[in-house]
Amino acid sequence: MLESLKEQVLEANLKLVEYGLVLFTWGNVSGIDREKGLIVIKPSGVDYDKLKASDLSVLDLEGNRIEGLKPSSDTATHLELYRRFSGIGGVAHTHSTFAVSFSQAAKNIKPYGTTHADFAYGEIPCTRDLTQDEIDGEYELNTGKVIAECFEKNGIDPGAVPAVLVHSHGPFTWGKDCFDAAKNSAILEEVAKMAYLSECLEAQPASQAIQHKHYFRKHGAGAYYGQK
Amino acid sequence: MLESLKEQVLEANLKLVEYGLVLFTWGNVSGIDREKGLIVIKPSGVDYDKLKASDLSVLDLEGNRIEGLKPSSDTATHLELYRRFSGIGGVAHTHSTFAVSFSQAAKNIKPYGTTHADFAYGEIPCTRDLTQDEIDGEYELNTGKVIAECFEKNGIDPGAVPAVLVHSHGPFTWGKDCFDAAKNSAILEEVAKMAYLSECLEAQPASQAIQHKHYFRKHGAGAYYGQK
Amino acid sequence: MLESLKEQVLEANLKLVEYGLVLFTWGNVSGIDREKGLIVIKPSGVDYDKLKASDLSVLDLEGNRIEGLKPSSDTATHLELYRRFSGIGGVAHTHSTFAVSFSQAAKNIKPYGTTHADFAYGEIPCTRDLTQDEIDGEYELNTGKVIAECFEKNGIDPGAVPAVLVHSHGPFTWGKDCFDAAKNSAILEEVAKMAYLSECLEAQPASQAIQHKHYFRKHGAGAYYGQK
Amino acid sequence: MLESLKEQVLEANLKLVEYGLVLFTWGNVSGIDREKGLIVIKPSGVDYDKLKASDLSVLDLEGNRIEGLKPSSDTATHLELYRRFSGIGGVAHTHSTFAVSFSQAAKNIKPYGTTHADFAYGEIPCTRDLTQDEIDGEYELNTGKVIAECFEKNGIDPGAVPAVLVHSHGPFTWGKDCFDAAKNSAILEEVAKMAYLSECLEAQPASQAIQHKHYFRKHGAGAYYGQK
Repeated sequence: MLESLKEQVLEANLKLVEYGLVLFTWGNVSGIDREKGLIVIKPSGVDYDKLKASDLSVLDLEGNRIEGLKPSSDTATHLELYRRFSGIGGVAHTHSTFAVSFSQAAKNIKPYGTTHADFAYGEIPCTRDLTQDEIDGEYELNTGKVIAECFEKNGIDPGAVPAVLVHSHGPFTWGKDCFDAAKNSAILEEVAKMAYLSECLEAQPASQAIQHKHYFRKHGAGAYYGQK
Repeated sequence: MLESLKEQVLEANLKLVEYGLVLFTWGNVSGIDREKGLIVIKPSGVDYDKLKASDLSVLDLEGNRIEGLKPSSDTATHLELYRRFSGIGGVAHTHSTFAVSFSQAAKNIKPYGTTHADFAYGEIPCTRDLTQDEIDGEYELNTGKVIAECFEKNGIDPGAVPAVLVHSHGPFTWGKDCFDAAKNSAILEEVAKMAYLSECLEAQPASQAIQHKHYFRKHGAGAYYGQK
Repeated sequence: MLESLKEQVLEANLKLVEYGLVLFTWGNVSGIDREKGLIVIKPSGVDYDKLKASDLSVLDLEGNRIEGLKPSSDTATHLELYRRFSGIGGVAHTHSTFAVSFSQAAKNIKPYGTTHADFAYGEIPCTRDLTQDEIDGEYELNTGKVIAECFEKNGIDPGAVPAVLVHSHGPFTWGKDCFDAAKNSAILEEVAKMAYLSECLEAQPASQAIQHKHYFRKHGAGAYYGQK
Repeated sequence: MLESLKEQVLEANLKLVEYGLVLFTWGNVSGIDREKGLIVIKPSGVDYDKLKASDLSVLDLEGNRIEGLKPSSDTATHLELYRRFSGIGGVAHTHSTFAVSFSQAAKNIKPYGTTHADFAYGEIPCTRDLTQDEIDGEYELNTGKVIAECFEKNGIDPGAVPAVLVHSHGPFTWGKDCFDAAKNSAILEEVAKMAYLSECLEAQPASQAIQHKHYFRKHGAGAYYGQK
């Protein structure tokens, strides 16, 4: 079942390797078939160079495994994101170096320039720390809840900010499909690296006007970047 | 038309990838045929590995598209640079990491040593921020105007400083042709990285004497670097 | 003798090159056959691309060479680790950039996040400096002794923290076999890089709760990462 | 003439590219035939991928060109080093990133650990700045003189410290032959990177005892690193 989505999710997982974002078995990408209410996700702890489409795990939105190997240990986080962010079609998680460093420092990534604004409208938020109870309970599910809470409390649109930093942990990104989610992990890492260097050079965030201009040059009805 | 220039501009765009300066579809290089008054530039949002010479956009200096796909969204900046800097034959734009970081920090790159002086005579300037009106109006054209203003107001010769940092945005470089422009993007990135590290080590700019010596070892009538 | 172990140790040494952890002949990996009481280790000063399984040195736990070329100059450190840490099956030593930098700064690597906690439970310790007498005497043996002392004095379990930073020198890592030891060198380097960046961003260590959670998600009886 | 030395110097120049130390035509390596009193050096401004053994420049120790293309613009510095440091057989010059950054910051590289001590005994010195007269006069020759002065005034043995940082410029390294010189450029860059990171982590230099131990583990009559 979902053979085409499995091939896409396999390829999107391998993109994480191509983009230089993961070591060993770290990281995972998933995709969703909204009509069927099923997701496909990387299995837990499998080497990227041994990964086959038939190994991928298929689950329903309640987390019941339908097919494939045991899913990524982060699956409950992906599922919560699909339930809470209804517009997204793919989710990616990495431990990429600079994005993780901002997570570990519990700092939002500020919009220092147009590279950021081309990607996201406003700061990339870092969540609050999970409580002892949240960690001792359904940890991965609670990670997803804390991400959704962060966006809701701060009035952030996950369509305009396709990335989050989980406190002490690392980034999750999403997009219209699994490829978009993986690509956003690569862009986030570059934006995080530039933000790190900019902070060391004592930068201030870009003006609201130029952030707005660049975001809407690429996104929304008035976008004029790209063909068509 | 301009088949030879198209091949050159295609190759120069691919150099940005080879030099490690661009992610995905970011960046663009153009070249000009001064006699015909036409430029060739990368089309907007096309993957580098799918780019063909016949896709490249041909425009006149007023920005009318003569041939090819829809041009880069930064085209109006390139055109203004060709109009204002009459000696240049190619322009390149990237979001390379260290150069962007100086742009985001709104800092000139100071001439800390001979690597810089071999490339440019004096500081690589960062422009002023664009105003709200300039951003809301013809943004890309105004970006070009602000670059030209920066050079004119500060009495900087674009022949001696083949690069600029646009405030909150990133670098533009130029040269005698499109290859030279792309190469200057690579050198600028290395010079920016060295400047970043040098500032962290609390460096002072090199003496005027050694800057002068190295610049004129490579440039101008008395240059003695290279064959012939 | 030990042909299979030699092949494994050869391959694990080459992993150090693949992981980008070593320059020239730097670094070394060993493995032990606990039943026979023999170790296999890289010979001293041999280029990785010329290394053959038959060149590898076989020694008993007292350091008597049984077979092969002259062993790595760090052999006595490996032997002391095998004698003192009875649960380990492989040892690796590199001069990887970020781990060495923490060694040179004589700083423990603090557990800033889950990437660290997935790998080790608590800080990666840096040993005390060796005394003049320890250096002038059996230096490499004393290096091993100082590592073991660091773990014993601080009550650190080498099964839970598979890495150490030797003061002014660099990292040693270990694991259940030589592949695990080499892999831990790669993870340590990434963890060290993230810790460096996190300190520059003024991070605080992760909460004890999340460290605990992530460590035991991957290690011990209750681990649920990976396929069974 | 000197066909074998030309082949070696060609290969050593290409090592700079392999080691990732040079951009474009930057950098140069030379080798000397002490019996004949002739050196072979990279020609000025030639691309590495087009370099042929027959292009290499042959000069006597007074700088008279005997054969080949116009030599590197840094030739007079190489010649002065061969005249003043009688034990060396090869010289290399790069603009490698971290070594240049220390040059630009006019800082010696302190011996923070054993990676440094395996390579050099004591600090890697940075020269004084050249005077206006030295720059306006025979600049490249004077660069060589200032290097030699730095070693003589500070009582540094160029056999024990095979590298220098020229103020505001970059590193020169040397060795028993051209391969050794090129290899030392690679080691210097790694040592410089580690020193940079160590300074950011507020490291102190390694103890004299451990510096001494590591240097003489690899160098001199009592060395016991490597085979035989």
